[in-house]
This record gives sequence, C-alpha cells and structure tokens, in this order.
Amino acid sequence: RLVALLNPLHDADIADLLEQIDQPLRARLIALWGADIAPYAITELRSGVRDLVVPLLSPEQLARVAEELETDDMVYLVEDLAETDQEKVLDALDDADRMAVERSLTYPEYSAGRLMQRELVSAPEHWTVGEIIDYMRASDDLPDEFYDVIIVDPRHRPVGMVALSKIMANRRETRLDTLMNEDFRIIPADQAQEDVAYAFNQYHLITGPVVDAQGRLVGVITIDDAMEVLEDEAEEDMKLLAGVGDEEIADRVWETARARFPWLAVNICTALIASAVIALFSGTIEAIVALAVLMPIVTSMGGNAGTQSLTVAVRGLATRDITSKNMWRVVRREVIVGVLNGAVFGMLIGAVGFIWFGTPMLGVVLWLAMLLNMLVAGLVGILIPIGLDRAGADPALASGVFVTMSTDVIGFLAFLGLASVMLL
Amino acid sequence: RLVALLNPLHDADIADLLEQIDQPLRARLIALWGADIAPYAITELRSGVRDLVVPLLSPEQLARVAEELETDDMVYLVEDLAETDQEKVLDALDDADRMAVERSLTYPEYSAGRLMQRELVSAPEHWTVGEIIDYMRASDDLPDEFYDVIIVDPRHRPVGMVALSKIMANRRETRLDTLMNEDFRIIPADQAQEDVAYAFNQYHLITGPVVDAQGRLVGVITIDDAMEVLEDEAEEDMKLLAGVGDEEIADRVWETARARFPWLAVNICTALIASAVIALFSGTIEAIVALAVLMPIVTSMGGNAGTQSLTVAVRGLATRDITSKNMWRVVRREVIVGVLNGAVFGMLIGAVGFIWFGTPMLGVVLWLAMLLNMLVAGLVGILIPIGLDRAGADPALASGVFVTMSTDVIGFLAFLGLASVMLL
Ligand SMILES: [Mg+2]
Ligand SMILES: [Mg+2]
Ligand SMILES: [Mg+2]
Ligand SMILES: [Mg+2]
Ligand SMILES: [Mg+2]
Ligand SMILES: [Mg+2]
Ligand SMILES: [Mg+2]
Ligand SMILES: [Mg+2]
Ligand SMILES: [Mg+2]
Ligand SMILES: [Mg+2]
Ligand SMILES: [Mg+2]
Ligand SMILES: [Mg+2]
Ligand SMILES: [Mg+2]
Repeated sequence: RLVALLNPLHDADIADLLEQIDQPLRARLIALWGADIAPYAITELRSGVRDLVVPLLSPEQLARVAEELETDDMVYLVEDLAETDQEKVLDALDDADRMAVERSLTYPEYSAGRLMQRELVSAPEHWTVGEIIDYMRASDDLPDEFYDVIIVDPRHRPVGMVALSKIMANRRETRLDTLMNEDFRIIPADQAQEDVAYAFNQYHLITGPVVDAQGRLVGVITIDDAMEVLEDEAEEDMKLLAGVGDEEIADRVWETARARFPWLAVNICTALIASAVIALFSGTIEAIVALAVLMPIVTSMGGNAGTQSLTVAVRGLATRDITSKNMWRVVRREVIVGVLNGAVFGMLIGAVGFIWFGTPMLGVVLWLAMLLNMLVAGLVGILIPIGLDRAGADPALASGVFVTMSTDVIGFLAFLGLASVMLL
Repeated sequence: RLVALLNPLHDADIADLLEQIDQPLRARLIALWGADIAPYAITELRSGVRDLVVPLLSPEQLARVAEELETDDMVYLVEDLAETDQEKVLDALDDADRMAVERSLTYPEYSAGRLMQRELVSAPEHWTVGEIIDYMRASDDLPDEFYDVIIVDPRHRPVGMVALSKIMANRRETRLDTLMNEDFRIIPADQAQEDVAYAFNQYHLITGPVVDAQGRLVGVITIDDAMEVLEDEAEEDMKLLAGVGDEEIADRVWETARARFPWLAVNICTALIASAVIALFSGTIEAIVALAVLMPIVTSMGGNAGTQSLTVAVRGLATRDITSKNMWRVVRREVIVGVLNGAVFGMLIGAVGFIWFGTPMLGVVLWLAMLLNMLVAGLVGILIPIGLDRAGADPALASGVFVTMSTDVIGFLAFLGLASVMLL
C-alpha cells in the first residue's frame, strides 16, 4: 500500500517527503519499503537527512541501490558516512563501481572528482559514425543518459567531444573527429566544484570530461549535477552573508540554535565595541540627550548602505563580473556612490534634526557624520569581500558582521565626536 | 587584427570583455568587427549592456546574427528594445523564425514562453528508431544541439520524449514509444521562469517541451538556459534581501546611486520611527546615560538574529523546503531558537552591563529586553517572507528593511520601557 501511495511521486518529491517527517517515521517507512525502495529518492535527500537515512538501509536495499545508481550518486551517498557504514555500502557494489567510488573519495570534498561519474562513452579518434552506433547497440552497459561521446587518444587523454545529435545527423562513414564540438573544456579532477559550476554556466557545457593528474579521462560531469552545485553555492553565499551556518529546514530546534550561535557570539563582541565607543562620549550625551535619539539613524543608514555594497561585491565576485582589471573602478564607484547618497540623505536627516531639536549646528553634525559613515560603508562593503577573496577565503564569509561593525563604530565615533567638538 | 585577437576567446568571455569597456569603445569595437561578429558574444551580454550594444549592429551584422542564432536567443536580444530597433532586428529573420520570435514576445516577461526555442525535433508515436535516424540524416534544419526527440500525437500535443542516447542504443526496428523517458514534464508557456528553473533542478530535466493554452507543442527549453535562470533568481533574492535594485557591475556611478536610493529612502523612514521611540524615553536616558551606551547592543543582536531567520526563510521558500505542511513547525522552531539564543546572550550581556555599571537591575533589564527582542526577531524574520509569499509577492522583497525596523523599534521600546519602569 505504501508503494502504491509513493509510486506516482517523482523520486525527488519522495525525498522531500522524507525530509519533512521525523527520524522514527523515516525508519519505519524505509523498513516497510523493502526491496521496492526508490534509489534516487535516497540520492535526492539533502546531506543532513541523507546521513540519517543511509545507515537505515538493509543489505537487500543496498544491493538494489548499488545496482541502479551511477557512481556519482553512490559517492554522494557514502562520502560522509562513518567508515563501517561506508564499508557496508561499498560491499554492495561490483568491482569496477567500487574502484570508481573509492577513487572519487580520494579527491577533496567539493571537488570535480566527487561530482564525476565513471559511466561514460568514449571512442578513439579514427572511429566513424557507423562504428560508434554499432558499438552502442552492442553494449549492455551504457550510462542511463548521456549526451556526448568523448574522443580519446591512444593514451586515454580526451581530445574532443561529439554530441549525439551530430552523430545522428551524419552518415555512417563520417569520421567522428570531423564532428567534434568546438566548446570542449577539460576539467581537472581536483578543481573546486564552484569553478566547475561556473564553467558549465558560462560556456553552456552539457558534459565535462574529468581528467586525473596525468591528463587521463577518469569520468564525466553532467550539467544537471553542475546546476545543483550552482544552486548550492549561491545558497552558501546567502547564508554566509547572513551569518547562518550549514543548517537545513529539517533541522530541529537544538541544531538550529547551535548553527546560529557562532555569528551571534561574534556580533555581541562587535556590539560591545560599538558600546565602548558610545561610552567615551557619555558626558556629551548627558549634556545633549538629542544625540542618543539621533545616533541610531547614522548607524542604521551606514549599515544598510554597507550591506548593499557588500551584496553587490559578493555577487560580482561569484559571477566573476569583478576582476582584477575593473576592481579599482568598482571600489571608486562604491566610494563615490557612498558620498553621493550620504550627502543627500545626510542633508535630509540634518534638516529633520534641526527642525526637531531647533539646533542648526546639530543638523550640520548629522549631515557630516552621515556623509562620512556612508563613504566608509561603501569602502568597507567592497574591500572586505575583495580582501577575503584575494586571501583565498570565501568573500561572503561573515562579511556582514564586520561591515556592520565598521559602520556602527565609525557612525557613533563620527557623530558623537563631531557633536562634542562642535556642540559643546 | 581585432578578429585575430578575439578569436581564441569563447563568446561568453568576449561578452564579459564588452561589459567591462565603456560605450564609445564598444561602438568602435562593434564597427571594426564587421561581418566577423560573433553572434553568441552578443547573446551572452547582461541585459543592461545588451540593450546598449544591439542598436549598434549594422544591417550586415544583424543578418549574420539572425542566420546563426536560435529563436530563444533572438528573443533575448530584442525583448527590451524600442519598437523601431526591434523591427530592424526582426526584419533580418526568415519568416518562420520571425513568427516564432513574435509569438514568444506575446508571453509575459520572465515566463517559459520567453525562454523556449522553436528549433526542436519531434516525431509521431508510431515512428521507429530507423525512421527518426533517416529523418535526421536527411534534414538540413536541425537545432544546433538537442538531446531528446519529442513524441507528439496527431494534434501536435506532446505525449513523451525519447533521449538520443536511447535511440542510438537500440535497433532500427524499435518503436520510439517503447523508449520514452519516464521523467517527462510539460511546461505551459505562461509558467513563471522561476518555476521552470525549479522543475529542471528538482527533476534533473534536460529538455522541457513547452505547450500553448491548447496543449500544442510550441517550443522547448533546454537545461543550459534553465541553469542561467536559476542563477539569476538566486541573485535577485540576494539583492532584494539587501535592498539593491536591478544594478550591474558595468553600471556607472549615477545609475548605481539611483539603484540604491529607494531602499535607503525607506530605511531612513524606518530609522526615524526608531528615533521617535527613543525620544519617548529621553527623560530616562538623561537620568541614566548608561542606557544610551547599552541600547544599540539590544537592537544589533535583534537585527542579526532577524536577518538569520529571514535568510533561512527566503531560501527555504525558494527551494520549496518550506511548504504549507511544515510552515508552522518552522515558525515555532524560529521562535524557540530566538528565545533560547536570546536567553543565553541576554544573560551574557546582562552580566556585562551589571559589572560595567554596577547596577544589578540594569543587568536584568538587558536580559529581558534581549530575550524579547530575539523572540520578535525570529517571529518577524520568518513571518514577513511567508506572508509576502502567500500574498503572491516575492518573499525577499525588502524583507531586510522591515525586519530590522521591527527589531530596532521593539529593541528600543523593550529596553528603554523596562528601564523606566524598573530603574527609575
Ligand atoms: Mg529536495
Ligand atoms: Mg552501475
Ligand atoms: Mg550564459
Ligand atoms: Mg549524475
Ligand atoms: Mg563554496
Ligand atoms: Mg562562495
Ligand atoms: Mg558574462
Ligand atoms: Mg534559424
Ligand atoms: Mg543553444
Ligand atoms: Mg536534485
Ligand atoms: Mg538556448
Ligand atoms: Mg523572480
Ligand atoms: Mg525570487
């Protein structure tokens, strides 16, 4: 009955369902499923739930999974398992698959080597359309889906790629090497998955041949998997910007609280620094309480402007629209934009301050502080991510916390400092 | 010489180069290029630069572009042009292409109808592998690249899809309808591109047949274009969260300042509301200046926690991990996490406040205010995007500004309000 219920669902939707229920229910469902388990429902799970589900599989279910999956999905299933669990799954594989999975696992996490599948079709340069068609018709071990034939030299190094659509459109005697795709890019197995996804998106790649350190073909990456990486990397950037760790919707209260904790801890330290700056001027505030009323406007606007610059910078670096060539132009632009918007909004809020509290000089102080803080916001918003990128770190890494720290500190310092000089 | 210089570059990289130079230089480069222009370098431009470059093309260049591009890319080139410029480009097309482009333009912006190309291969249900191979060998108007043959009924409604790899692996007499792909999803032409990209990523689609209101096949969308949409939509969410408009790295100072302006304007209003709240308690602050020193900690932590919840919610809605089924569970979780982290950090900062200023009651006030504000942060951070989504708006739309407004107002109100009750 369970099978009848799940059957009309796509594997990816079954995976979503498994993510939404709790662990005891998952265990019961997996047990009930038995040999009818849908292997792709397991590979579609997000990593947090995957690591809870795979150890639940019976040997019989593992055999079924091993028989159906290609090696890239096998790698995804086992890569984060404890060694004994990993061994149990690997034992279900035939020798060639097992070797391929073990090879993938030697490459670093988040690298091309982890994304590739060993199932591919390759052919020597001198083959013709007729020969490759006959080969494919005779083969009983073709990949589930593939879109290109990789052309290799005698030492098994890829030299080109022929799209199936080109093979189908040409006569049997045509040589494959006359049909090769111009867009052909070789992917080193140790390339970061972020760069792999970028290349697929930038060059409209469908299949990417992966080579080892000796340049020999060891697998292929297909665009559907690259698309998922692109999505994951965008998600990672968004979460890093907001100071959220590697959490999932399926996580429980305790895991979520823990995932949010680190950046809140950093933020409380930076907030204390900002408080210390205010404390320097408590005498000034005691004399003119309007300063306490107005000071959050300066920091709020600075924080907002800084976040704008920061987001544009992080995206620009991710999509490679910011390069070493135009970097200084972008930095200069951010600073000028900061000054322009700072001047406009500073004037506005200066006028409000003057009218509200009746002190013209207070308006001038607000105006100057806002101008300065939005200039700093632009500068810090662009320089922090560029600096992190240059240092080899992720440009989104906690940039948000440091940008708002800078705009808070500078905002309070400028506003209260100018006030104590110009108003007392 | 120019051509020799650009030749080794991929069209997408030439596009990046065109984006980085300024408009007079672009005009000179396009003129120099002449008939050797690379059509795909133009379709790879970001929309801002594309609309500046297409009007520069000579009739001779337009003819070359028209001859080479498929209709989805033609649509991309002309969709935002002024009508006279659009007409100039459309005139370069042959009748069938022109009709297809004009039909695409009748569908709303950011819909499947704009993404589809008319170039596709379809076959009736009763055809065999041999018949489709002969058909393709004889045809001189096949799409540049394609991965599936769409099977249609006599009224030209798609009923299935056969992957080229399946055709190649089977004998000539095999009927196509025995080889049909199980993962077959029809895309209505008026579907939002966001939903199209989601379906491609969720179901590992490579080709999506697009149908009109009568269910007839009018085009196909390929995964490379869906991948770009996925990237664009993630970028849009990030920018909306930060209150950045539709700006590009290639934009100049003036355009950038204008793009940032609207949300800064909203933010200054919300900041004024927060100031008004502080003003209510100026008497209290005059009496206890330590309040002015400590109050930004409460709002800073609230803003940070709210941004965390917000980002998780916006992502969860985009990836459809948050559904109407688990929505309340997620809301409850955010609130509890807010209370937990609020209690911990409130305790910490309460202790700091007590030690710093020597007033135990000040510590208690800080603790309570922090607890309350982080609870509100969690609640608002999740409810604003869910509410926007339910109302049919984009969940990321300016949520950031409203979340920080809420945490600022509640933070000041709770802290200063409690202080005036408990400390005066
Ligand atoms: Mg899923
Ligand atoms: Mg296998
Ligand atoms: Mg592109
Ligand atoms: Mg795969
Ligand atoms: Mg990364
Ligand atoms: Mg990143
Ligand atoms: Mg580009
Ligand atoms: Mg054409
Ligand atoms: Mg194409
Ligand atoms: Mg998937
Ligand atoms: Mg296309
Ligand atoms: Mg959108
Ligand atoms: Mg969106």
